[in-house]
Amino acid sequence: METPVYRLDLCYQGTHYQGWQSQPSETGVQDRLEHALATFLRHPVRVTASSRTDAGVHAEQQVVTFKTHVPIDPVRLSRALNSLLPKDIGVLNVQVAKPDFHPILSSLGKAYRYRLWQSEAKNPFVAPFVWKLHPRIDIATIKRLAQEFVGTHDFTSFCATDSSAKTRERTIFEMRVEERGPLVDIWIIGNGFLKQMVRAIVGTLIEFADGKHQGTSIGAMLAARDRKAGGSTAPAQGLSLVHVFYERVMSCEELIRESSQGFTVGV
Amino acid sequence: METPVYRLDLCYQGTHYQGWQSQPSETGVQDRLEHALATFLRHPVRVTASSRTDAGVHAEQQVVTFKTHVPIDPVRLSRALNSLLPKDIGVLNVQVAKPDFHPILSSLGKAYRYRLWQSEAKNPFVAPFVWKLHPRIDIATIKRLAQEFVGTHDFTSFCATDSSAKTRERTIFEMRVEERGPLVDIWIIGNGFLKQMVRAIVGTLIEFADGKHQGTSIGAMLAARDRKAGGSTAPAQGLSLVHVFYERVMSCEELIRESSQGFTVGV
Repeated sequence: METPVYRLDLCYQGTHYQGWQSQPSETGVQDRLEHALATFLRHPVRVTASSRTDAGVHAEQQVVTFKTHVPIDPVRLSRALNSLLPKDIGVLNVQVAKPDFHPILSSLGKAYRYRLWQSEAKNPFVAPFVWKLHPRIDIATIKRLAQEFVGTHDFTSFCATDSSAKTRERTIFEMRVEERGPLVDIWIIGNGFLKQMVRAIVGTLIEFADGKHQGTSIGAMLAARDRKAGGSTAPAQGLSLVHVFYERVMSCEELIRESSQGFTVGV
Repeated sequence: METPVYRLDLCYQGTHYQGWQSQPSETGVQDRLEHALATFLRHPVRVTASSRTDAGVHAEQQVVTFKTHVPIDPVRLSRALNSLLPKDIGVLNVQVAKPDFHPILSSLGKAYRYRLWQSEAKNPFVAPFVWKLHPRIDIATIKRLAQEFVGTHDFTSFCATDSSAKTRERTIFEMRVEERGPLVDIWIIGNGFLKQMVRAIVGTLIEFADGKHQGTSIGAMLAARDRKAGGSTAPAQGLSLVHVFYERVMSCEELIRESSQGFTVGV
């Protein structure tokens, strides 16, 4: 008999972790989750995740799978993990996965949100989740230029040079910029993302809005296929992996509407 | 010449403090603010606040005044305080106060929000700010009964027995219950609040929704003027002081609209 596979959806505040991935120093979110699973199941567990979020990046939905022969009640496991895990990591749901389910290979796309904060005010409720920028930035330019990333491109110019990806071609389905008082949310939905790709896109957009990169264009940057051609990388704390799509890819509008209904919060 | 009075608006996450008020152990928010002010102004400072929030209660707007002969630039002071204060306390604004301004006596009213979370899911982004309740609670009952608190009443039955208030009569202008997915916000606007009054009101409403207090009513509880007649006190972490009104009292609707425009966040 095949070893059953479980799908686990979790969320975390990335502030105090060296990213998703397991670290020799055990400071990855994965380390905490695997420890909690091993404690409950009484055997070592390796999990596979949909995304390797960077150090300091948050996840409102990260999807992982693991295998175990131990018979488990998903609801009981979810409760047990939530008391074993630190306060900044939460299990949203545990379920038996379909036999062919794979968190990366089955994914149709992902949604990220990068959050800017344009205010002098120090707001302890939002500070861990935003990139604070002031004076007020040129949102019209960001909205306009963001559309130049939409479509299928080679994103080498917007990808960490140590990326291990086999191909640098990715498709961005939609980008959307939403302003709400001092908050500016840059939404980006695509079929997959390279290492630091969203942060490089956002960093570049902000530089364009600041009047940098005169005489060049997003198109020219993409065409160069050289990280040195792209703009700088925005700080990690503004970025959240919001959703991983398996059944169908949602539009930004739909996702924002669902988010405001509280399947994630603070959106 | 009179010593100039300054008004300072701040916000804080109450989780790690023994409430607003200065403590012998220096674990009040007031202690942190007075230390920061003394460091900047180079003389001891005493501040007066609009509200003594309880241990664990948050404030999206707390208003305080202080006096100093040291000539200060409000913007510079605000920046300096924000770097001197811990991450969970932020200064929103500093301004010269009108000579007759007093954070308590000049106040026309205050708005509090108590946030419930009806879900099994552990969400690290909201957990510090909600009272987690499940299974789903009877919101219709809470909405209906909340209206019985509106008006001018003696709130002795909903006030900590060690309250030092001279009179227990207060006026609640408006109560409103807003549901958004697993979040339930109980808004309460009134001319003033007794010690633990909002938490006692919320705790009582939840008990009614749970089918407790059969054969009695909010009216009877109020009429008893005895803390033992009221229901229990809801936990501190779900409560936020959202706004202190000085020029005019806003309606819940207006306040929620302004909040969603980002003068506070997460609402």
